[in-house]
Amino acid sequence: TRFEASQSFHHAPFLAIEAQTSHHDLLALKWPAPPRNILCIRKDDDDQVHSALLEYITHIKRDYPETNLIFEPYLAKQLHKIFDFPIYTVSEDDSNVPYHEKADLTTTLGGDGTILHAASLFATATSVPPMLSFSMGTLGFLGEWKFKDYKRAFREVYVSGHPSPLPERIGNEVTDGGSGPRVTTDASAWANIKGKSMGASRSSRVLMRNRLRIGIFDSDGNRLPHEPPFAHANNKCEDIFALNEVLLHRGALPHLAHITILIGTPPHQRILTTAIADGFLVSTPTGSTAYSLSSGGCIVHPLVSSLLLTPICPRSLSFRPVVLPANTPVTLRIEAENRGKEIEVSVDGVRRKEGLKAGMEVRVVGEEVRTPGAPGARDWMGGVPSIVRSGGAADGEDHWVGGLNGLLKFNYPFGEDG
Amino acid sequence: TRFEASQSFHHAPFLAIEAQTSHHDLLALKWPAPPRNILCIRKDDDDQVHSALLEYITHIKRDYPETNLIFEPYLAKQLHKIFDFPIYTVSEDDSNVPYHEKADLTTTLGGDGTILHAASLFATATSVPPMLSFSMGTLGFLGEWKFKDYKRAFREVYVSGHPSPLPERIGNEVTDGGSGPRVTTDASAWANIKGKSMGASRSSRVLMRNRLRIGIFDSDGNRLPHEPPFAHANNKCEDIFALNEVLLHRGALPHLAHITILIGTPPHQRILTTAIADGFLVSTPTGSTAYSLSSGGCIVHPLVSSLLLTPICPRSLSFRPVVLPANTPVTLRIEAENRGKEIEVSVDGVRRKEGLKAGMEVRVVGEEVRTPGAPGARDWMGGVPSIVRSGGAADGEDHWVGGLNGLLKFNYPFGEDG
Amino acid sequence: TRFEASQSFHHAPFLAIEAQTSHHDLLALKWPAPPRNILCIRKDDDDQVHSALLEYITHIKRDYPETNLIFEPYLAKQLHKIFDFPIYTVSEDDSNVPYHEKADLTTTLGGDGTILHAASLFATATSVPPMLSFSMGTLGFLGEWKFKDYKRAFREVYVSGHPSPLPERIGNEVTDGGSGPRVTTDASAWANIKGKSMGASRSSRVLMRNRLRIGIFDSDGNRLPHEPPFAHANNKCEDIFALNEVLLHRGALPHLAHITILIGTPPHQRILTTAIADGFLVSTPTGSTAYSLSSGGCIVHPLVSSLLLTPICPRSLSFRPVVLPANTPVTLRIEAENRGKEIEVSVDGVRRKEGLKAGMEVRVVGEEVRTPGAPGARDWMGGVPSIVRSGGAADGEDHWVGGLNGLLKFNYPFGEDG
Amino acid sequence: TRFEASQSFHHAPFLAIEAQTSHHDLLALKWPAPPRNILCIRKDDDDQVHSALLEYITHIKRDYPETNLIFEPYLAKQLHKIFDFPIYTVSEDDSNVPYHEKADLTTTLGGDGTILHAASLFATATSVPPMLSFSMGTLGFLGEWKFKDYKRAFREVYVSGHPSPLPERIGNEVTDGGSGPRVTTDASAWANIKGKSMGASRSSRVLMRNRLRIGIFDSDGNRLPHEPPFAHANNKCEDIFALNEVLLHRGALPHLAHITILIGTPPHQRILTTAIADGFLVSTPTGSTAYSLSSGGCIVHPLVSSLLLTPICPRSLSFRPVVLPANTPVTLRIEAENRGKEIEVSVDGVRRKEGLKAGMEVRVVGEEVRTPGAPGARDWMGGVPSIVRSGGAADGEDHWVGGLNGLLKFNYPFGEDG
Ligand SMILES: NC(=O)C1=CN([C@@H]2O[C@H](COP(=O)(O)OP(=O)(O)OC[C@H]3O[C@@H](n4cnc5c(N)ncnc54)[C@H](O)[C@@H]3O)[C@@H](O)[C@H]2O)C=CC1
Ligand SMILES: NC(=O)C1=CN([C@@H]2O[C@H](COP(=O)(O)OP(=O)(O)OC[C@H]3O[C@@H](n4cnc5c(N)ncnc54)[C@H](O)[C@@H]3O)[C@@H](O)[C@H]2O)C=CC1
Ligand SMILES: NC(=O)C1=CN([C@@H]2O[C@H](COP(=O)(O)OP(=O)(O)OC[C@H]3O[C@@H](n4cnc5c(N)ncnc54)[C@H](O)[C@@H]3O)[C@@H](O)[C@H]2O)C=CC1
Ligand SMILES: NC(=O)C1=CN([C@@H]2O[C@H](COP(=O)(O)OP(=O)(O)OC[C@H]3O[C@@H](n4cnc5c(N)ncnc54)[C@H](O)[C@@H]3O)[C@@H](O)[C@H]2O)C=CC1
Repeated sequence: TRFEASQSFHHAPFLAIEAQTSHHDLLALKWPAPPRNILCIRKDDDDQVHSALLEYITHIKRDYPETNLIFEPYLAKQLHKIFDFPIYTVSEDDSNVPYHEKADLTTTLGGDGTILHAASLFATATSVPPMLSFSMGTLGFLGEWKFKDYKRAFREVYVSGHPSPLPERIGNEVTDGGSGPRVTTDASAWANIKGKSMGASRSSRVLMRNRLRIGIFDSDGNRLPHEPPFAHANNKCEDIFALNEVLLHRGALPHLAHITILIGTPPHQRILTTAIADGFLVSTPTGSTAYSLSSGGCIVHPLVSSLLLTPICPRSLSFRPVVLPANTPVTLRIEAENRGKEIEVSVDGVRRKEGLKAGMEVRVVGEEVRTPGAPGARDWMGGVPSIVRSGGAADGEDHWVGGLNGLLKFNYPFGEDG
Repeated sequence: TRFEASQSFHHAPFLAIEAQTSHHDLLALKWPAPPRNILCIRKDDDDQVHSALLEYITHIKRDYPETNLIFEPYLAKQLHKIFDFPIYTVSEDDSNVPYHEKADLTTTLGGDGTILHAASLFATATSVPPMLSFSMGTLGFLGEWKFKDYKRAFREVYVSGHPSPLPERIGNEVTDGGSGPRVTTDASAWANIKGKSMGASRSSRVLMRNRLRIGIFDSDGNRLPHEPPFAHANNKCEDIFALNEVLLHRGALPHLAHITILIGTPPHQRILTTAIADGFLVSTPTGSTAYSLSSGGCIVHPLVSSLLLTPICPRSLSFRPVVLPANTPVTLRIEAENRGKEIEVSVDGVRRKEGLKAGMEVRVVGEEVRTPGAPGARDWMGGVPSIVRSGGAADGEDHWVGGLNGLLKFNYPFGEDG
Repeated sequence: TRFEASQSFHHAPFLAIEAQTSHHDLLALKWPAPPRNILCIRKDDDDQVHSALLEYITHIKRDYPETNLIFEPYLAKQLHKIFDFPIYTVSEDDSNVPYHEKADLTTTLGGDGTILHAASLFATATSVPPMLSFSMGTLGFLGEWKFKDYKRAFREVYVSGHPSPLPERIGNEVTDGGSGPRVTTDASAWANIKGKSMGASRSSRVLMRNRLRIGIFDSDGNRLPHEPPFAHANNKCEDIFALNEVLLHRGALPHLAHITILIGTPPHQRILTTAIADGFLVSTPTGSTAYSLSSGGCIVHPLVSSLLLTPICPRSLSFRPVVLPANTPVTLRIEAENRGKEIEVSVDGVRRKEGLKAGMEVRVVGEEVRTPGAPGARDWMGGVPSIVRSGGAADGEDHWVGGLNGLLKFNYPFGEDG
Repeated sequence: TRFEASQSFHHAPFLAIEAQTSHHDLLALKWPAPPRNILCIRKDDDDQVHSALLEYITHIKRDYPETNLIFEPYLAKQLHKIFDFPIYTVSEDDSNVPYHEKADLTTTLGGDGTILHAASLFATATSVPPMLSFSMGTLGFLGEWKFKDYKRAFREVYVSGHPSPLPERIGNEVTDGGSGPRVTTDASAWANIKGKSMGASRSSRVLMRNRLRIGIFDSDGNRLPHEPPFAHANNKCEDIFALNEVLLHRGALPHLAHITILIGTPPHQRILTTAIADGFLVSTPTGSTAYSLSSGGCIVHPLVSSLLLTPICPRSLSFRPVVLPANTPVTLRIEAENRGKEIEVSVDGVRRKEGLKAGMEVRVVGEEVRTPGAPGARDWMGGVPSIVRSGGAADGEDHWVGGLNGLLKFNYPFGEDG
């Protein structure tokens, strides 16, 4: 059968993301060998997105025949009926999903929500493969490409870091061995790309988005399990990582939640304050343009290594959003005053089925994306490597300013024509 | 039996609340005859409050023996086991509660929540009896008195508007007829108060809090029923009145709600905007220091005849709270984009069990508390007449400024001792 | 000479602005007789505006030959060299400008600043003639018309309240008497309008903008004079009226100002708070979309009878904008802590040359625009009657919602095309 | 003469500020030898502060006789009349003030303003000596000690990093050589401290506050000089460093300023937006609790390596404070629309006498306080090393949380007793 389990292949982790000089805050993507295993995530329940996916799959398999395409199980089932090349997925038992051991590259088709979902599949991984995101209609804020540019985008990413101009392709001699994906560590695989040479390849630029590490604890200090899509079946009590934020919220009952915020780790832990509020957010800089923004938080550039504390509708005149160093341990403790009802906890827009009771805690700390090695030797563990748009006004590191202005309508001028 | 139904008595509505000159924005309470039927509401599940209630009841019945004390049914059941004077309540069938036809005065023991609950019992009444509120511990914002002042407070209210200094009382000749409360329209009843004369009586001051009139409609424009405590069994589709606000909210699912706000009535209705947000509030000025404040709304004095529109966590950089004339009809329409889930609706902190689906509408307009009669002849229909604290720094109309500073810690100074 | 002093004519005040039913919050303009004396104010130093003014003048004098055109002295001097009909102005001594005794109608060409300037010429008048405003480029927020619509606009205003459809005009028999404007109280003057009949006339709609009454006092409680354009030479210590706001500000030195805000009049005056801030604003609802908005104030509909207190950069976490009833007396007192420097005071964007020293006070109260007469008999003294745009989406009372969305970009949607 | 010029002595820069494990974000102060030259800055025009200074000087010279005390020239002149030991200052020509070449330690007596002034004396230095601050009355936010603790504080700082417990002092054998300060590189000088041994010395903790590097440019791109106290006579066009912020402001005229904000350096520079506002702030995290806070900025921990962009009263609904990486070059350009008037520029509360005209630019970038050396070898150039309070609840890194709660009244609870 072409519908194969995932055990049979390995991924070739991108080893060399390096700082670049001209755009010093973004990194350059350098594959040691072409990416082989491409995880494809798409938005659900959207016909336009689905058609786009089919077109995308067809293109990739034709022009990059050595790649293997991986999908979430429910989607793999659907697709292997349509295509006659192998469709990969992870183990059928979808509560145990080691995507990060398989995928070299993730591509998403949808919006910001799809990117968040894709990231949630790597919620227990400290090393996440690069992510290339496409959106159908209007762009989102998380650095996606327009779907219409998918051919150029994929090619740029595929050859990123390739040492020299690509030779003309000779023919379509590459075939799928039929026996599951094979690890290619040989950079000569780049020679097999269909189509004209693109001349000297430029490196794709990568924004390392740091995440939040999150643990949930009962009132005795024992870890509580996380739920899918974040948690794996056999490892439910690990910390998980969030790309936007963790949210505590009063939920459906319109009464104030009481949440105490502590900073540091015992014995240096100290109470910052008790929020009496609708809820409380701990966000990444990436999440600063999501829920935190709506709650009145300021906009923090994704390269500021920090955590945001933003209350939601605090019953106070004197609460102000706070930005802390990313490495600050933050504890959110559910107070006894919560009228016996549970406080709901959500990560990146996904609510945990079980709420939290008095005494329980959410413990959070920001991921550090720059390991303390010598500059050349850093290996940039941690973070979600997001491939930013290239070309045009949105090029390179400017994409963030472009997003503020074009999408968020930052400081939009008054007046008739706007 | 001493536990009697409410049918047997009538109330003597306070007819003459008049504008006062020195405190021109508050009204003076003038009973044509002493108030007879006192509705007593207390906070639940609080032993301290319960003891206070017993002390309060004992005092009132001893010093003001001609008054009748009315309670909510569940409480009346408890109390008539304790006391040997008649305990009144409304019809056992608590879904049909015509408190406003019975009570001359409402007194509350608890906090702001208890006041809101008391007001909800008059949610279909356009004429609400005056409300005298006591709090146990720290004061709330809605103008309550400290419980320790209850004797002075009750007396001041009881004699408010009495034409002349009260005579010394002769003896304890007043007895309860035993046959249920009797309507006293005779001002001479004032002579029966126990204790020394208080000298020339001063009028209690009343802040008329205007409310919101709220109707809920299905997508065909038909009225939907309200739920208790607001709605009566036989009249569920009437509009109800809120003292603080009506809230639409995403509820437990952490996804944005889409709510369109329209202003005016057809054919002059016009879309103000579509809020994509956690929720949306329409508040009274009274409610401006409640949920609206937490959501970033400004503080509006309760005498500014207005409505506040305040979004909750809007996904927008350019939403700003808006204050409209009280008589502006505002419609909140649930949009189709709400992902098939229901939007929750709450009034004054009480959530309606059934949420709202796409196409449904909440229609709101502020209550006008000043009828357009000639100044002397105005009868101040509408609004909840709240008896404000007297004495000391909190006297008269200053109570609002006092509340801002003392309770809300408005513009609290920086510094060590602050 | 055609350049005449203003003494020779009188104005026919619009007597009957009446509430209208369909747009119940706007009033209908009803002239007892056609307006005769038109005060024309234009923005300075703008060639496009100047050309427009010439075109406008020519049109008015040709089609409404019985009107008299009045200008500010400096402009009148320029214009009477160009035109061969009489150009009126007020007394040369421009520090004594009783425009409100002369003008029946004010028209402005420019932006919001021009409207503010026109209003400042009536800063000591309690009865202000209606104002019709045109803007050249993009519209402003204060309800102006596009200049391209000036013919329709002027005609609509001119005939507003005329009892019946206007007859066809017979010929151009009307001439200027040459002897200065003559008071026409005769409604038959309407018959003299050039051009086709417009059919049944509709009334122009008027938004009465309430203003702030402002007095400045030294530390002994003596009134201090106001300066031009607000104050008249012979009457400098009167209160003046502001359309947007009065501003106290630290001025050029970057140190905090200390300003105490008191509410009420002695002996019921009470300290609200001491603002330690860059400055402090007391605004009208009209001004809520001007400086107050920039300082974080909420948006208040011009028909909410209120005052806004908005601090500018307060050194406090717990300051929140406050909305008070229009009739609240507010005192701003300069504290001794201001390091010996003066606090600057500005009205509607015009700074008073002399600043305020410690102990000085600005006393403010909102204008009440609805006199307490019986509904039919109200004469709507007070306020600046602004003629709102008619036609199209901006029609009638909707102009405010239109302004929020079209000009202020209220709740502007996120996304690429915006 | 005892009033000596500064040329004769050198300073022994603290070489080893090291990261500490238990309070990992603060550094440990380790002198290679005791600090010799102490710069003493005090608040002006405050008798209480002056008396405290005299007491402080007397104590230091008695118990630490080998130290040299340095003052600003005007103060040195006063003091050398009072004391009979040498009083040092910098060159009389106070426009050339190389304090950073002289002082080993700065101590300040006053408030936050005094600390800012002390920092301004090092505005062109990239290596600033540690700063120990005392306040008289209520504490400020910048980490000062209470003056009453000055003996303990000074001793703790003086011995910080001393390898072993200090021996009992033998006698008062240490005398001032009388010939001007002598460089002691010998750690044995620690033995000379008067008083009992303090047992094992603990290191003082240092918070490195990163600053802003600021240059001002004319419209041709030429540097403009800075003014005292920041700039030196012979080096006026250097960049200067600010501890709180640089401010552009409309100044005294109440009209909007137009300032364009650009990010990056050419050719990667990009327009972020044009602020139409009262002014614009670029702040350090330290400055986030100063002016930026008043303008609505969020609170950023001083260890988040970042820059804050905060508009002051922007005429926009959609401006939101922005936090950028410290190393982001930010340019503020004065636009032509500023009505011909100058825009005022201030640094840390000191206004530059000359304002900026259209086309001029302020260029800003954050100081990087962590040099990229290997962890052990880092030398922490840059930043102002602020010695944080020790002892009690304010100990160590908690001082920041303590300041938020105790001084700023962060999230101050509602209710009567506060
Ligand atoms: N009131 C609010 O603003 C709420 C915001 N959210 C946010 O939505 C996220 C989940 O997204 P969806 O599943 O798509 O939910 P959704 O369908 O409710 O949409 C959330 C919106 O936020 C945008 N968004 C998500 N992440 C963003 C980012 N980092 N920067 C800028 N925009 C971003 C999306 O494009 C979408 O427009 C959560 O992580 C939370 O941050 C969730 C609930 C309420
Ligand atoms: N995030 C927030 O600020 C939320 C506020 N609320 C408010 O709570 C009200 C219901 O009150 P409870 O049943 O006691 O709920 P609750 O127990 O959740 O307490 C609400 C708090 O608001 C205070 N409060 C209520 N009305 C007030 C007013 N008009 N002015 C100033 N303070 C006021 C109460 O004293 C109490 O401290 C709702 O009408 C809503 O306004 C409800 C949910 C969330
Ligand atoms: N930071 C700010 O927002 C500042 C605002 N102002 C405002 O400017 C007014 C003076 O106007 P100009 O002489 O034209 O000064 P200006 O040339 O500085 O422009 C002020 C801007 O505010 C607009 N504006 C004025 N009144 C308005 C209103 N009621 N609603 C909405 N927009 C309004 C004008 O159209 C213009 O865009 C003052 O009364 C004050 O309210 C003045 C200084 C600073
Ligand atoms: N509206 C406002 O909030 C204004 C604030 N300022 C601030 O004042 C600073 C100059 O200080 P002074 O000469 O003492 O002027 P000042 O006498 O006007 O006082 C400024 C206040 O800010 C406090 N402060 C200064 N730096 C601080 C910081 N980093 N964190 C917390 N609080 C701080 C001071 O303790 C003082 O209470 C400027 O750098 C600027 O940040 C200056 C003008 C207006």
